[in-house]
Amino acid sequence: MSDKTVLIETSARHLHLSDADLATLFGEGYTLTVKKELSQPGQFACAEKVQVVGPKGALNMSILGPTRKATQIEVSATDARTLGVTPPVRESGDIAGSAPCKLVGPKGEIDLKEGVIIAKRHIHMTTADAEAFGVKDKDIVCVDFKGPRGVCFHETVVRVSDSYALAMHIDTDEANAAGISGNVEGVLLK
Amino acid sequence: MSDKTVLIETSARHLHLSDADLATLFGEGYTLTVKKELSQPGQFACAEKVQVVGPKGALNMSILGPTRKATQIEVSATDARTLGVTPPVRESGDIAGSAPCKLVGPKGEIDLKEGVIIAKRHIHMTTADAEAFGVKDKDIVCVDFKGPRGVCFHETVVRVSDSYALAMHIDTDEANAAGISGNVEGVLLK
Repeated sequence: MSDKTVLIETSARHLHLSDADLATLFGEGYTLTVKKELSQPGQFACAEKVQVVGPKGALNMSILGPTRKATQIEVSATDARTLGVTPPVRESGDIAGSAPCKLVGPKGEIDLKEGVIIAKRHIHMTTADAEAFGVKDKDIVCVDFKGPRGVCFHETVVRVSDSYALAMHIDTDEANAAGISGNVEGVLLK
Repeated sequence: MSDKTVLIETSARHLHLSDADLATLFGEGYTLTVKKELSQPGQFACAEKVQVVGPKGALNMSILGPTRKATQIEVSATDARTLGVTPPVRESGDIAGSAPCKLVGPKGEIDLKEGVIIAKRHIHMTTADAEAFGVKDKDIVCVDFKGPRGVCFHETVVRVSDSYALAMHIDTDEANAAGISGNVEGVLLK
């Protein structure tokens, strides 16, 4: 890999649950089942699924664990159209005023007033990675991907934490548009 | 508009029919009904729809007229997944060995051995436009789109004919990935 190379991973639609919402949907004291470890340390895909319901349709989505402070549903623009919601493009965790939906689990339902977002494309990296790339937390960079449907992704936000591992995350619309299947490599351009 | 500005239009899934296939699906002597004129001179969206059936699902698609030499179905990668087909990324008209599907119309059905493609992103332009841009037919260029989800589209093929009007065509995955809704402008970069 060159100095500027970044792994690009595609995130399919998924949701993160708060402890309280997990209890409502799956029952008091329920614990999530790890199905697969993800590239970000400590993060995992769960065996459990939740039905996310919008005005026009419903989609079953995987839960990513562990639980978080607030419940958040990450969809592509295509998924949003299926559901009939109009979520904003946001960074993870920034859900104030985002789109509403209903969650249906085996033990209960929740009407969420907000929580649905389209994740803004981003790169997770450690402090050491950021130094090597010459960037800092919150910087907006471009990541160039070559291929028969190659694109350069502008507006990619850098997120720095020593709890991260180096990886860019895009959604399924972005992967389809760029002809990306599986994990590929891009080049960070400032 | 700057010298290098190009209108970007989004093409949703659609199909073109040959005279023979139109007759099979809609009946002998049937004539397509113009619903809306398109940006390309003489091209129009039709009132008629055809059901396109794949191994995993079916989608109703609009016909674009007039009829052509060969029937061709243009889908996004997302649509292809819904149908359960794996079409190649191709220029319009290049359908040899492309994906199969079944077409269902009000008067008949057709099992197509090939015809389903994902359209390669492209720019239609006249000879005069090509001269002004300093490009020629079949050139591969980049088109830069600015916005909150901006991207630079590499691998954009230039198609020159005096029967065209200046416009870039992308599919719905590409529009969603770039946060494009309605017609927008991009800048041609060589």
